[in-house]
Amino acid sequence: MESQQYQELLEKIKSRQPLDTEMLDEVMHPADIVSVLDEDDITDEDLKWFFSANNKEFLADVLEDADDELQSRVVHQLKYADIIKIFSYMPKDEIADILGDLPIGQRKELLNMMKLSDSRELRVLLGYRDDTAGGLMTTEYIAMYQDLTISQALAKIREIAPKTEIIGTIFVLNRKRQLVGWADLRDILSTDPDQTIEDIMDPHVITVDPLMDQEEVAQVVRKYDLTALPVVNRRHSLLGIITADDIMDVMVDEQTEDILHMGGVSGQEEIGGPIIVSLKRRLPWLIINLATAFIAASAISMFSSVISQVVALSSIMTIVSGMGGNAGSQTLSVAIRGLTLGEINLKDDWKLVFKEVLLGLLDGAAIGLITGVIVSIRYGNAYLGVVTLLAMIGNLIIAGIAGYLIPLIIEKTGQDPALSSSIFLTTATDTCGFFIFLGLAQIFLPLLK
Amino acid sequence: MESQQYQELLEKIKSRQPLDTEMLDEVMHPADIVSVLDEDDITDEDLKWFFSANNKEFLADVLEDADDELQSRVVHQLKYADIIKIFSYMPKDEIADILGDLPIGQRKELLNMMKLSDSRELRVLLGYRDDTAGGLMTTEYIAMYQDLTISQALAKIREIAPKTEIIGTIFVLNRKRQLVGWADLRDILSTDPDQTIEDIMDPHVITVDPLMDQEEVAQVVRKYDLTALPVVNRRHSLLGIITADDIMDVMVDEQTEDILHMGGVSGQEEIGGPIIVSLKRRLPWLIINLATAFIAASAISMFSSVISQVVALSSIMTIVSGMGGNAGSQTLSVAIRGLTLGEINLKDDWKLVFKEVLLGLLDGAAIGLITGVIVSIRYGNAYLGVVTLLAMIGNLIIAGIAGYLIPLIIEKTGQDPALSSSIFLTTATDTCGFFIFLGLAQIFLPLLK
Repeated sequence: MESQQYQELLEKIKSRQPLDTEMLDEVMHPADIVSVLDEDDITDEDLKWFFSANNKEFLADVLEDADDELQSRVVHQLKYADIIKIFSYMPKDEIADILGDLPIGQRKELLNMMKLSDSRELRVLLGYRDDTAGGLMTTEYIAMYQDLTISQALAKIREIAPKTEIIGTIFVLNRKRQLVGWADLRDILSTDPDQTIEDIMDPHVITVDPLMDQEEVAQVVRKYDLTALPVVNRRHSLLGIITADDIMDVMVDEQTEDILHMGGVSGQEEIGGPIIVSLKRRLPWLIINLATAFIAASAISMFSSVISQVVALSSIMTIVSGMGGNAGSQTLSVAIRGLTLGEINLKDDWKLVFKEVLLGLLDGAAIGLITGVIVSIRYGNAYLGVVTLLAMIGNLIIAGIAGYLIPLIIEKTGQDPALSSSIFLTTATDTCGFFIFLGLAQIFLPLLK
Repeated sequence: MESQQYQELLEKIKSRQPLDTEMLDEVMHPADIVSVLDEDDITDEDLKWFFSANNKEFLADVLEDADDELQSRVVHQLKYADIIKIFSYMPKDEIADILGDLPIGQRKELLNMMKLSDSRELRVLLGYRDDTAGGLMTTEYIAMYQDLTISQALAKIREIAPKTEIIGTIFVLNRKRQLVGWADLRDILSTDPDQTIEDIMDPHVITVDPLMDQEEVAQVVRKYDLTALPVVNRRHSLLGIITADDIMDVMVDEQTEDILHMGGVSGQEEIGGPIIVSLKRRLPWLIINLATAFIAASAISMFSSVISQVVALSSIMTIVSGMGGNAGSQTLSVAIRGLTLGEINLKDDWKLVFKEVLLGLLDGAAIGLITGVIVSIRYGNAYLGVVTLLAMIGNLIIAGIAGYLIPLIIEKTGQDPALSSSIFLTTATDTCGFFIFLGLAQIFLPLLK
């Protein structure tokens, strides 16, 4: 994208200069035009003008590349007739996503204005949740009966091709319209025209149920390196297909969710989004964190007489608890990733906890030794160093166990382990860290003074 | 995948029963066969038998679906002649990946045993780092001169199609072999056979440089919803193409890296992997963390006389510092995600820090008020509550600033912001948390006793 074209388009929109969309289509990709429309100084009025004034086929390409927020702004600005015209150039799964975000009344009116065959397909797509296979699928694919000859098939492909999203894979149906196989366009192109589709099809198709969660769907697509994944119902009728580009969007959304969840933010939040959304997503988790912070702090309160006799303990204890949190986060991130990729589960792999115990022992010994030596020198008391070493080993073993088991147990209950495991982890490492260290200090108190 | 077939195959391999690979290919997907070969009880000897005894075309499909580790185990077990035969059925990018992991001597011997045209292509692919566009690209695509007629093009497609990874997109070259456009197979199929490719091609191709980092490549593919992305050199010669399935693998790898980096683990680590790898990946970061923990602890040491006079401070201070860390992680995760998706950068968006300051103020006021009230009641001293409130607001504002700016600044220096930002963050929130809280306590000491 050249930034000169970008600036020019922005100025033309602001000054309402007529656009030569054919020319624009030549020099800018729809995704780049979307970037212009996403600029802060593009108002709703600008969008209204842009989407009312121009060629509807061109606008369909642009609208398809826009994100949910921009799509809904546009749809709210346009007349229904214009929306219907733009929709006529868009794939059904995209239209269903836009309709799904509209108020129910508006959605119904738009559906009623469409061709009956279109609105029927859309009503089916709208029946599935966005984050399921049914919500992701599109109805633009090529399907053929198995008894067609290759030459009949080719004629049909020529006719349907412009309307499909996927051309490399042709889905094969029996006369009951059940999915019985798939054929590769490569084979169709290079086979004797008198053979039938059945002769060259591969009967082994990987399919998914429309209710499958999008994260699992992404795992299937990745495992089998698919460019199109068919969705079938229990009768094995083909309902639609899911394409690789939609799976990439799913992967990004799921990744965003995981990273935000691990940071203690629930749901979607963009860095530049409204402050009230950020507050809603973050404050509840901070309050939960606060409750756990009080638990850890009360472990300290239990030992206030020990601390008042050896004040140095108050600064060393934060090192022991903090290092437990750090080591636990390491285990936690490896475990959460293993869960997301489907590589571990509690039932088969609980024994791996022993590896984490051993790691905690080794890391704890190394870190504890360094800390112990520094503490001994700094406060001129070797016993204080030994207490620190022992507490560090103990807390890092607990960190390993907690960091490994917490996400596995949360996942077992059907929740997202990324969302709350770090809260449980730090509760464990802070509380145990303070308790072990100050407890040991109490036992050896006469030697520490 | 049916688990009966899975068990049967496992038993057949263990008992060295001859396999009917044609039959096996019918009932199991290569990715599922790989799952069997990945089982713990499959030894190197089993692999050697499996890959020596069977049909090489079938084995090529299986080897292609295996991960790096299994591929390298197989290659180490096989005779060179067998490897070369299997390679002859595999795409070049996969072969290059396998060769790239071999010791240099073995790699050279294998290259020398291949057909000259194959080894030449592979040497080019091997010249690029794995994590660049050049390392990801494959040379199996369809390219045609622009002056061919549609009927000539179709004949050529029929001939080349079986050897390519991508068929939907045909790349168009001029007679200097420079990439000048692309054509959609749909259009070729439905156009008058006497027209030329040039008539129907789209001259606007999005291309990347072979040295582009894989994370950027993935962003380009996602932004423009591409199924194939051409890689060109400075002369605009087509070097290869990158396909969507390889991009999905990149996305998963990058995501794993981000999550592990955020948890303080450098590089790749699997939960079930060897303990020595885990130790190497984790201990260095714990030692860096330890250094920062000492910085925070020394902030406490500065106020030991204050703590010895009001011991309650030693437990409350951990709440103030801990909540700063929690609030900072929230901002950090949103900022890191924004950076990964290319949505923010330091130059244009540094002003967003004011949003984080405001959020810190609001969150800090809410959390500080709750904490302050509880502290006032628990210790029977309202001034202690006020000091807690003020310190909490101060620390949460610092957390917001640090959580936002640290990853942006690290990214600006060309490093991965996920890797070290949480260390800098907790250093800031712990040190400042202790300092502000204990500093305020020192000022108001007469009122707190």
